[in-house]
Amino acid sequence: MASSQKKTRIKANTPKGDYLRVIPMGGLDDVGMNCCLIECNGSMIMIDCGLTFPETDGYGIDVIVPDLSFVLDNLDMLDAVVLTHGHEDHIGALPVFLREVDVPIYGGRLTLAMVGRKLEETPLDGPVRMNPVEPGDRVKIGEFTVEFIHTNHSVPNAMSISIETPVGRLIFTGDWKLDQTPIGEPTMDLQRFAALGADGVLALLADSTNSGSPGFSKSEADVQEGLAAVLESAEGRVIVAQFSSNINRVQGMLELAEQFGRKVALQGRSMHNNFGLAEGLGFVKVPKNVLIDLYDVHKYPDDEILIISTGSQGEPRAALTRMAYGSHNKLDIKKTDTVVLSSRVIPGNERGIQTVINELTKRGATVITANDRPIHASGHAKRGEMKLLLNLIKPKHLIPMHGSYKMRSEHAKIAATVGVTSGLVIDNGDVLQFSGRGKPTVIERVHVGRIYVDGRSNAADIEDVQLRDRKALGFAGIIIAHVVVNRSSGAIVSGPDLMHRGFLNAEEEEMLPVASKFVRGSIEKMSASERRNSNQVSETIRQSLRRYFRKALDRKPVVIPIVHELSLIHI
Amino acid sequence: MASSQKKTRIKANTPKGDYLRVIPMGGLDDVGMNCCLIECNGSMIMIDCGLTFPETDGYGIDVIVPDLSFVLDNLDMLDAVVLTHGHEDHIGALPVFLREVDVPIYGGRLTLAMVGRKLEETPLDGPVRMNPVEPGDRVKIGEFTVEFIHTNHSVPNAMSISIETPVGRLIFTGDWKLDQTPIGEPTMDLQRFAALGADGVLALLADSTNSGSPGFSKSEADVQEGLAAVLESAEGRVIVAQFSSNINRVQGMLELAEQFGRKVALQGRSMHNNFGLAEGLGFVKVPKNVLIDLYDVHKYPDDEILIISTGSQGEPRAALTRMAYGSHNKLDIKKTDTVVLSSRVIPGNERGIQTVINELTKRGATVITANDRPIHASGHAKRGEMKLLLNLIKPKHLIPMHGSYKMRSEHAKIAATVGVTSGLVIDNGDVLQFSGRGKPTVIERVHVGRIYVDGRSNAADIEDVQLRDRKALGFAGIIIAHVVVNRSSGAIVSGPDLMHRGFLNAEEEEMLPVASKFVRGSIEKMSASERRNSNQVSETIRQSLRRYFRKALDRKPVVIPIVHELSLIHI
Repeated sequence: MASSQKKTRIKANTPKGDYLRVIPMGGLDDVGMNCCLIECNGSMIMIDCGLTFPETDGYGIDVIVPDLSFVLDNLDMLDAVVLTHGHEDHIGALPVFLREVDVPIYGGRLTLAMVGRKLEETPLDGPVRMNPVEPGDRVKIGEFTVEFIHTNHSVPNAMSISIETPVGRLIFTGDWKLDQTPIGEPTMDLQRFAALGADGVLALLADSTNSGSPGFSKSEADVQEGLAAVLESAEGRVIVAQFSSNINRVQGMLELAEQFGRKVALQGRSMHNNFGLAEGLGFVKVPKNVLIDLYDVHKYPDDEILIISTGSQGEPRAALTRMAYGSHNKLDIKKTDTVVLSSRVIPGNERGIQTVINELTKRGATVITANDRPIHASGHAKRGEMKLLLNLIKPKHLIPMHGSYKMRSEHAKIAATVGVTSGLVIDNGDVLQFSGRGKPTVIERVHVGRIYVDGRSNAADIEDVQLRDRKALGFAGIIIAHVVVNRSSGAIVSGPDLMHRGFLNAEEEEMLPVASKFVRGSIEKMSASERRNSNQVSETIRQSLRRYFRKALDRKPVVIPIVHELSLIHI
Repeated sequence: MASSQKKTRIKANTPKGDYLRVIPMGGLDDVGMNCCLIECNGSMIMIDCGLTFPETDGYGIDVIVPDLSFVLDNLDMLDAVVLTHGHEDHIGALPVFLREVDVPIYGGRLTLAMVGRKLEETPLDGPVRMNPVEPGDRVKIGEFTVEFIHTNHSVPNAMSISIETPVGRLIFTGDWKLDQTPIGEPTMDLQRFAALGADGVLALLADSTNSGSPGFSKSEADVQEGLAAVLESAEGRVIVAQFSSNINRVQGMLELAEQFGRKVALQGRSMHNNFGLAEGLGFVKVPKNVLIDLYDVHKYPDDEILIISTGSQGEPRAALTRMAYGSHNKLDIKKTDTVVLSSRVIPGNERGIQTVINELTKRGATVITANDRPIHASGHAKRGEMKLLLNLIKPKHLIPMHGSYKMRSEHAKIAATVGVTSGLVIDNGDVLQFSGRGKPTVIERVHVGRIYVDGRSNAADIEDVQLRDRKALGFAGIIIAHVVVNRSSGAIVSGPDLMHRGFLNAEEEEMLPVASKFVRGSIEKMSASERRNSNQVSETIRQSLRRYFRKALDRKPVVIPIVHELSLIHI
């Protein structure tokens, strides 16, 4: 991640007294890449540092991270990174960021453990300054007093963050929901949110994801009940696919397995990773004699087996997908299996998931999705919960976070229905300033953007020009023309020899000799002095090849001319 | 579409008496590509000939059509193509097929007009033998008596097909639904289905698309009511995006426009095309003084305007998308506009649609989707309708068509609940044979597959190897190494010169001279005799370049070595 050449400093309209600024660096409109800066009197914290995934695969891009060159240009202000929870879209860009920056990180123990696991694969100069915090902890960071408040979400250890500043208090929800009957954790700390509200909150920065959904989200207890019904009626093995970070759901299933006399085997690398971290830190309580190894599944009758697996999104290499295609080394799908997809469909994964469901069904398994049974609950607050939090906190302003413009505008409208009429719908890069008693204003925009990352060991950035070239190559293939020209006479010694990759089908390849003659003709029409200039010959080759294939096939491949000039005498 | 070398003949187990075969060539599991052969005693008809679209764009593939080499190998049997309706997934492969085959085509007048429009862009040897039919028409084709029965769907002129054969009667629904209060057309011919059922039906070949949805599908009258509510409350212009072939919905809106005193302007090429065809053939009745040109929209107050547009799927070049981005040459989105997406989301289009909704919302428009209001109805029968048709017809067997394996198995289960216990869930390429009184059996499998088509004027097929090359090029880019070797001595005269496209970012390009030295070193380690063999030099270049970049960057580009051998004396 290269820092931009010109240092970007926020200077505009800096008021004489105290000021407070909110600068979202990502997460608004982007799917993922959640990252927000809070700056007060020259002291800055970053809340979350997430990644997103490319919309189409195929160009060697593994992940996309926010362009944080603005932060790199203002590093002297940055006092800490504060994390709300351990999902990729909130912590996934940290490995890239921490390669360049040494900054203390605050977050829950499980959240930091998940960061630590990611950093194991990242070569860093020195140790990372991790500061684990508990719900209720208050930490002084620069101009801020940061307090961590327990909330519910689809990963344990999620926390909202109260940020006290000389200008007023912000509450940043992070991803949250209200779960009144949670599994493996308490209900969100309603009393603390209420007390902070009573004490006065300048602005609530809140998750807008589900602003389109009326009512209240389902509880993990509802999901447990739905899964219990499946376990009760299933005659063979039950295989539940879910997100590996949803440890509370695993907890719920461990309890059910004990109740229904089933053994639980975990499947998938990330499932083992996340479960291991959560168990080590006490975020999951494993009943005795319930967990078994996947290798031992065959030792038990089918109706005593529950497998909890990754692959709910139809990911090509996930265990469930391999089972669906019969290419799993340990498990074959049986006709008596019940497969439960206990998850939502992430947009873009529809076809992959549908294919996996199909293959499972072909092998005779019964497949149950959230459309069939109440076996999934959203991790994000719906309208009823949004209103409740606003009514508990009664902030002066709402800044809708996490979501598309439509979701955020909707959130602002919902707030207005419960009396919070100042909904500030801002954009990534907007510098929203609070100061004195005036209305908060966007005083300027700083640079934001996306950086494409090839996720292999060295994690190089993929530049726009590379991506453009890869798209052009992928779209129509390449044709290479190699010609040898006598530098003294300008005569064509040999060629042009044409070769291609991906451009022509077998039948069309018969055009190559004709195209070669056409190009040779174009070169021969040049004057001898023009032909002695390899750049001019290259340009002629490029143009005449393009013209030939545009006319013959109406297609435009990438054309690479290679002109070799000889200062030689032929023998 | 090249015919396979080896002629494929169905010969296996041909019984002595009459026999009837059902051979689906596509549409089962594929999204689209609907095409099914019915063969009886050596006489064959093809029902529908559809295309599908690639799951990811970017490789120059415009459409995918079924590999019909089996049909080409058995052309002497093919007596006709019979069409159920004019959607792309049922007629879209005809232009490719008709380039090679001259066969009579039967279908409704609007359906054939839609085929004709597609064929205008296709160079064919001679005229196509189009045979327009009306609902109720009975046509003798080879061994079959084919009868066309009016049904409801999301395009007018949809027909189910009864096929009388010496072995028994088949009814092929095509895509269908029951609309009890349709707009612009009658309800499906329930009485005729019932009469045929009473007369005896061997097998019902039926649309399984919505077998996962309980109850009955909404009616176009419900949609009209939902749209009426939108028009009633909208204070500015209303822009409704929908599929251009859903002419009955356009009809409903024309009626509403008259009622609410709005003028209607159509937008989008395919909207104008389909509407023009439908109007010319009497499939839409335009009230007087309602239709206006898009150019004249500004001449009326905003609350007197209704625009019916393409672009409901967020297609990049569609009119609605251009409006959303402010790049439309005639219309700008206003804050008072209401945009209605009167359509379902086709899987794969989620992100595109979401982006368009966002951009429209940012410009201040109110966006209404089928999640918000009852403004869309499915064109496919749900479980209640499926049961009704089975109860009306009481076929001996059900062959679930059109849909994934899961949808089709579900359909078979639904049939069993109403007493049709023989559900034959077969695959593309299966030859299902009915003969005598025995159980219908899959007697063999014929070749089926997908052909990738570059849709430009010449419509060349894209072969698997091309697609593989394009994917490899797109994934990591290409590196080309050019070296000149003295053919007599084996000495390296110059190079290797390295160039790349899409492989390296600017910083990484600094590796090229080092990589060149590394490759040169590898060549120099070869013996002089090895170096005199250009193939061996190529292989050394390829291997050493791959090794170098795998180690340096953990990436594998496409490598092209160009070895030029000189029989020359250097001067």
